[in-house]
Amino acid sequence: MEYVIGMDFGGTSVKAGIVDDEGRIIERDTIPIDALSSFDEIMTPVIQWIKNRVKKNELEIRAVGIGTPGFTDKKRGILIAGAENIPSLKGHSIPGMIEKQTGVVAFADNDATCAAAGELLFGIGKKYRNFVMITLGTGIGGGIAIDGRIYRGRDGFAGEIGHMCLDPGGPHCNCGSRGCFEQYASGPAMVRLYSEKLKKRGIKPSEKLTPKDLFDAARRNDEVAMETLDLVGLRIAQAFGTLLNIFNAGACIMGGGISKSGDLLKKIVSKHLPDFVWPELLENVSLEIAELQNDAGIIGAAAQAYERLLSK
Amino acid sequence: MEYVIGMDFGGTSVKAGIVDDEGRIIERDTIPIDALSSFDEIMTPVIQWIKNRVKKNELEIRAVGIGTPGFTDKKRGILIAGAENIPSLKGHSIPGMIEKQTGVVAFADNDATCAAAGELLFGIGKKYRNFVMITLGTGIGGGIAIDGRIYRGRDGFAGEIGHMCLDPGGPHCNCGSRGCFEQYASGPAMVRLYSEKLKKRGIKPSEKLTPKDLFDAARRNDEVAMETLDLVGLRIAQAFGTLLNIFNAGACIMGGGISKSGDLLKKIVSKHLPDFVWPELLENVSLEIAELQNDAGIIGAAAQAYERLLSK
Repeated sequence: MEYVIGMDFGGTSVKAGIVDDEGRIIERDTIPIDALSSFDEIMTPVIQWIKNRVKKNELEIRAVGIGTPGFTDKKRGILIAGAENIPSLKGHSIPGMIEKQTGVVAFADNDATCAAAGELLFGIGKKYRNFVMITLGTGIGGGIAIDGRIYRGRDGFAGEIGHMCLDPGGPHCNCGSRGCFEQYASGPAMVRLYSEKLKKRGIKPSEKLTPKDLFDAARRNDEVAMETLDLVGLRIAQAFGTLLNIFNAGACIMGGGISKSGDLLKKIVSKHLPDFVWPELLENVSLEIAELQNDAGIIGAAAQAYERLLSK
Repeated sequence: MEYVIGMDFGGTSVKAGIVDDEGRIIERDTIPIDALSSFDEIMTPVIQWIKNRVKKNELEIRAVGIGTPGFTDKKRGILIAGAENIPSLKGHSIPGMIEKQTGVVAFADNDATCAAAGELLFGIGKKYRNFVMITLGTGIGGGIAIDGRIYRGRDGFAGEIGHMCLDPGGPHCNCGSRGCFEQYASGPAMVRLYSEKLKKRGIKPSEKLTPKDLFDAARRNDEVAMETLDLVGLRIAQAFGTLLNIFNAGACIMGGGISKSGDLLKKIVSKHLPDFVWPELLENVSLEIAELQNDAGIIGAAAQAYERLLSK
């Protein structure tokens, strides 16, 4: 049996684990980080964690897989941009430092790409050689599998699905564009839409409203919540429709925190999907919810490393 | 030197040619067809044309490449749908019949996919391993090159870019959807938009208005024409922006009849493109005009056959 360390970099901690070649986490940990400290300060406990596991030498650790927000250059592993919540990572190569200090080969990739790799190797994606995946959370990420491999594009930046423009007259996005997918179907976007709709009906929304509250209300048949989710589902269908028209894929997968409310979302998206796809491109296409869920970070980071070891 | 026959099926004729392995047409012909006759009637002169070239035996014909509108199943070569102007092709395999009756291996593909194959092997696409191409004409087609190969998707239907939804509240499309790219930037769509704008200013547009008239007027600095083309260019930029965000490609190529007015279009699309792409995904990306132009049909059909021979 082979093992890979998976590490998911977030704003307050690095979630780390040892993942076997069947996608099981056999050890897991949370390494706290101060996201505003220097690159070396962030990496010191991370490197130490890896060294401790490699030193023991009980398991053969084949590689370290890293997931981060933003764009990582596939050739050099340098984080180029887009990880604003951990600013000192920018311009550095996490896998480069890990390889140098531990001697273990390392690969880094965008966290949504990792999530897609996780599903491809160890989740619902195993059934499909071609699929498109979106991760719905604070933002929207994307990952693409083509002929059983993760598609990374020229530099490794492919799958920036959250910023596909669904309407050039739509709401402003923090990326500078307007009408990005993220502005319609991310957690904050759906909460904002729900709040606006409540206000229009003279109901003051709680300031602590979460996507979970929205889904709970819809399950209680709350009209405003159902109307909101219908619009969210329409936009997800528009995005998946474009992706299916382009890729002629076999499945659309929804992941990320919000996909926990998957069944309701799946129903709404399924309803709207035929409006956005050529019938021939919708035949035998499955709409699926990601399987890895809470473990997607660690397993996904490890999976993209496994996936790249295959092509070494 | 190797040779492939390229055949481009249109509504009134099949354009046929012998194409050498450097993309030169060494013999060309137009085979008239009655688009409303039966499959066998359409195919009889086509088969005869091939037999005459193969029989001579002066050149080694390696394969026959076929380009048609619509969706061709990549495994069996059967035209599934979408070639409404030659209805009797539906449900038949053109390459199947050619192989059976001539003994020469044959491959069929969508005409926009053929155009992309043409550029990849013999045109401006040679410079890029990853590019997205759109063909602007009566409709809008698309082709995708990934790592130096044409991407066909699960069934062979990939690249249906003309029907990506750019605005779910947009104009109705004959595919049943609304706001398809084709409704903003195809020849008929740009003429319609131009006519509407002229009418609003109290000018009666000619009923024979063509895209060429629109481009000519814009070159004379006609304000209404420039305003129209700015909107067309914005929508092309929106579509390319989405494709670049998804594919992290090295180039966007515009082909099809309308791309003859390429320089003006390129200028407008370039202006709008940064509004629709993450900056990292626009770095070192070229916007190009297809090189093959009038010969794209025959050369493209031959090119997709050459490209598939490579993987045999």
